[in-house]
Amino acid sequence: MDTAERLEAIEAIKQLKARYFRCMDEKDWDGQVAVFAPDVEVDVSGEMAPGENGMIRGAQEFVTFNRGHIEDVLTVHHGHMPEIEITSDTTATGIWAMEDMLRWPDGGPMRTLHGYGHYHETYEKLDGQWRIKTMKLTRLRRDVTLG
Amino acid sequence: MDTAERLEAIEAIKQLKARYFRCMDEKDWDGQVAVFAPDVEVDVSGEMAPGENGMIRGAQEFVTFNRGHIEDVLTVHHGHMPEIEITSDTTATGIWAMEDMLRWPDGGPMRTLHGYGHYHETYEKLDGQWRIKTMKLTRLRRDVTLG
Amino acid sequence: MDTAERLEAIEAIKQLKARYFRCMDEKDWDGQVAVFAPDVEVDVSGEMAPGENGMIRGAQEFVTFNRGHIEDVLTVHHGHMPEIEITSDTTATGIWAMEDMLRWPDGGPMRTLHGYGHYHETYEKLDGQWRIKTMKLTRLRRDVTLG
Repeated sequence: MDTAERLEAIEAIKQLKARYFRCMDEKDWDGQVAVFAPDVEVDVSGEMAPGENGMIRGAQEFVTFNRGHIEDVLTVHHGHMPEIEITSDTTATGIWAMEDMLRWPDGGPMRTLHGYGHYHETYEKLDGQWRIKTMKLTRLRRDVTLG
Repeated sequence: MDTAERLEAIEAIKQLKARYFRCMDEKDWDGQVAVFAPDVEVDVSGEMAPGENGMIRGAQEFVTFNRGHIEDVLTVHHGHMPEIEITSDTTATGIWAMEDMLRWPDGGPMRTLHGYGHYHETYEKLDGQWRIKTMKLTRLRRDVTLG
Repeated sequence: MDTAERLEAIEAIKQLKARYFRCMDEKDWDGQVAVFAPDVEVDVSGEMAPGENGMIRGAQEFVTFNRGHIEDVLTVHHGHMPEIEITSDTTATGIWAMEDMLRWPDGGPMRTLHGYGHYHETYEKLDGQWRIKTMKLTRLRRDVTLG
């Protein structure tokens, strides 16, 4: 892979993550499935309520999980400052700073959440398209308001 | 256009949008005029007070409009997660996530606005420089405090 | 330097600044020293308490200063919208929009600071690695809550 090809892969992964965030906030669930490898592994152990499992496997499974938590929630998610490394023609790693701002409708489990952290991810190129292969969110801070 | 040239165009458009935001927040109005094509079309229908027209044509006209609304307002505007596609040697499209935080002086129409949304834009290369050709802001959320 | 090499340098500087922010928020002080040229000059005159000097010279000196101010503080720093220009094979300039959100433990000099501004920087390539050579932060706004 030459320099231009490596930079092209980095730009493609940035746009992939942009779609991940935009599809979340626009509730475009089919669009969000398409950003993941079919066998994606998402470590949500940092996000879990007690009794929920911390690892989700499968693009459709993750989006179903995600949708169950935020379909009725007004969400804003932004990513920042990517550190993407292309590790082969078809694999890459990335770290992203993240900020999310959620507001629940009346009767929700909380009123607002304002959080900050980092995504730690790997990517895979499948049929010419980069996809998220593994994803884990670590948090620096969570500010919650109730009722 | 080869890969390096396409990536160069994408980087130039990112820096163009960076100047758009920085000139806004630093009140550099001449600098802001220069980021637009002279015949730019800006759809401000989502931002309008009743009775205002939703479409503004012309770089100078838009900046005059913008200045009229925020010259005395302390503003912070950030763009995130661009999805830029180069569609020919001289045309491109882009989507940007956006966050804006405004604070009015005493006596203003409101006290603060904290908003979130997406810019949907097209770009044109004129005399070797990329410019914003059309711009429309859609909002996910607007939080306003009064008096 | 050809187009691909120039874009590679811009991407390297973006990832350099990403490490600057992430090492700050993760309190990885050795990691933060490594983003600076050994003789970095940091103009902190806008950040100073009365009686403090406004210019700090040296990577270790700056990180020691920084650590003294925020070691016990929960910090979130994000950079946005870089305008990076490569000025020679080994030098570059950059402007970044910045947002920082700090929360002090009980007994701190304030409770929270939420700020916005721009970094104005220069970079130097040393032994094949880009480093921050000079850095100055200007602020658009600082919102502070006490006790």
